Amino acid sequence: MITIALDAMGGDHGVGVTVPAALSVLDREPELSLILVGQRDAIDAELKRRRGAESARLRVHHASEVVGMDEPPADALRRKKDSSMRVAIDLVKRGDAAAAVSAGNTGALMATSRFVLKTLPGIDRPAICTTLPTTHGHVHMLDLGANVDCSPEQLVQFAIMGSILVGAVEGKPNPRVGLLNIGEEDIKGNEIVKRTAELLRAAPVNYAGYAEGDEIYTGDLDVIVCDGFVGNVALKTSEGLARMITQFIREEFKRNIFTKLSALLALPALKAFRKRVDPRRYNGASLVGLNGTVIKSHGGADKLAFEHAILEALAEAKKEVPQRIGQALAAMAANKEETA
Amino acid sequence: MITIALDAMGGDHGVGVTVPAALSVLDREPELSLILVGQRDAIDAELKRRRGAESARLRVHHASEVVGMDEPPADALRRKKDSSMRVAIDLVKRGDAAAAVSAGNTGALMATSRFVLKTLPGIDRPAICTTLPTTHGHVHMLDLGANVDCSPEQLVQFAIMGSILVGAVEGKPNPRVGLLNIGEEDIKGNEIVKRTAELLRAAPVNYAGYAEGDEIYTGDLDVIVCDGFVGNVALKTSEGLARMITQFIREEFKRNIFTKLSALLALPALKAFRKRVDPRRYNGASLVGLNGTVIKSHGGADKLAFEHAILEALAEAKKEVPQRIGQALAAMAANKEETA
Repeated sequence: MITIALDAMGGDHGVGVTVPAALSVLDREPELSLILVGQRDAIDAELKRRRGAESARLRVHHASEVVGMDEPPADALRRKKDSSMRVAIDLVKRGDAAAAVSAGNTGALMATSRFVLKTLPGIDRPAICTTLPTTHGHVHMLDLGANVDCSPEQLVQFAIMGSILVGAVEGKPNPRVGLLNIGEEDIKGNEIVKRTAELLRAAPVNYAGYAEGDEIYTGDLDVIVCDGFVGNVALKTSEGLARMITQFIREEFKRNIFTKLSALLALPALKAFRKRVDPRRYNGASLVGLNGTVIKSHGGADKLAFEHAILEALAEAKKEVPQRIGQALAAMAANKEETA
Repeated sequence: MITIALDAMGGDHGVGVTVPAALSVLDREPELSLILVGQRDAIDAELKRRRGAESARLRVHHASEVVGMDEPPADALRRKKDSSMRVAIDLVKRGDAAAAVSAGNTGALMATSRFVLKTLPGIDRPAICTTLPTTHGHVHMLDLGANVDCSPEQLVQFAIMGSILVGAVEGKPNPRVGLLNIGEEDIKGNEIVKRTAELLRAAPVNYAGYAEGDEIYTGDLDVIVCDGFVGNVALKTSEGLARMITQFIREEFKRNIFTKLSALLALPALKAFRKRVDPRRYNGASLVGLNGTVIKSHGGADKLAFEHAILEALAEAKKEVPQRIGQALAAMAANKEETA
């Protein structure tokens, strides 16, 4: 049995999404046990509405406060020691849960996770890692916004963490790691990227060289490493482009009676297409580099999306990703001492 | 009459694309005159094949050498003084052409343009600016790869150049300028972005604040400013995602006999959609900040795409964009001296 703590109050929809998602995942995952952390009244009312109840595999853990979606992380950390977010992470720290999931604000979740769980030895700062669909399957990309400026050493840590995450969760040996860069001839990358490439050649990862932006979606890489500024821009740019494309398709099919009819007939293909790129199926970013598994759900996640975040937490907790990363880093450190 | 010099040999397809594109645009633009620069034999043969010929509005200017698509810019600049790319830019320098268009390698084109035309007073380095479709129309984004690391002062120069370009070519007063940034609460941007925002508030542009990646496509901005590394990654990421989405749509419609039939019926809508996001219609990036107009076409451009690059050159040459940027910078400098 694996126990996961859910910040039931987090996200734009709070218990309206987290509770039904929890009930749905519990139905399908017999080895999962969930702790709903948050205001007991609100959670109980929602459980009742959804015809759910506490059970051996579902319990409510009261936490009186809620971190606001726009609340400065420092405030959340200092003042809200009984927030649903904080208490869910405390449960991981105490070993009462193997992972925490929150749709709350990213900054507060990152700050609280670092403060409570601490980073693994050898990791300067945690990174945010997510999965994205590709023409070949999918790829893990990090960092997505936790670290604006990164040193080459940090980028190498991201490469190692990403490799271990993919190796553990997907059982993929030697995941191919690409370093995000630009391809213009005379200006191939900045100094940090160049130095990172040198370090990656000597690091215990399967380094596949530079990747340009388009290779995120069309390359054959398993892990893409970049600093949080670039990663966040790439991710958000993709979200915007996907939204625009969806809107354009909808508009074209609504243009006249003929296109409207053709849309009806095209529905199965269009639906299958939408499913393949549905961002809800990729919801659940990992905060890697911590002494514990913390999954960040999109704030606007609906039930399906939040279910995927819980499943991501389950997969990582099952494979003990933080422990594996810790072991790899310890082995690396020992190796360095030996050769030194 | 406006004269534009075309690097007839540049790009993956050389004269096979540049010559027919030239003939096609000349047919439609009575006030345009073109100079095809490159190896006379190759150009003449292609002209013959396309039933074109030299005329009052189309002449061939022989240049013996060709810059390779992978040739280091420094080599192209030093060794190939009679390349089609170099000679086309020389024609702009001498005032024989109002603009140059090349599908040759970006690094060489940028290095040669800077060397021959020089940057405008007050501009440290030129930037690459392109147009992208948005849900509202389109947006100009710069820099896209010419400047890997940018100072706040350079980013402000990009904002001014982008504003003037949009104002001149589109006749839009007070274009809205956004500064690309990430939105996480505690880590809002790096120091350079923050300092740039301060400077932009005092600059002679209509600064609309930070823009996240998704606002490139869904925002209501006219200009988006970022450093060349981030801009290049955003652009290439978009290209990759668009390719993946197109592939997925095609695959879903090919899945079985029913979806294949529905694709036939959906063809008008799908075609209209593809036209709206067709990257060929957005081909032609401006190298802004130079004493002259230089347009970079995608290396893989086909006839339609290269035509759009020529039309972009025509639009910018008509509106004398470099002169306008020069005037704006001079006014700014005078203003600064007055207040100092």
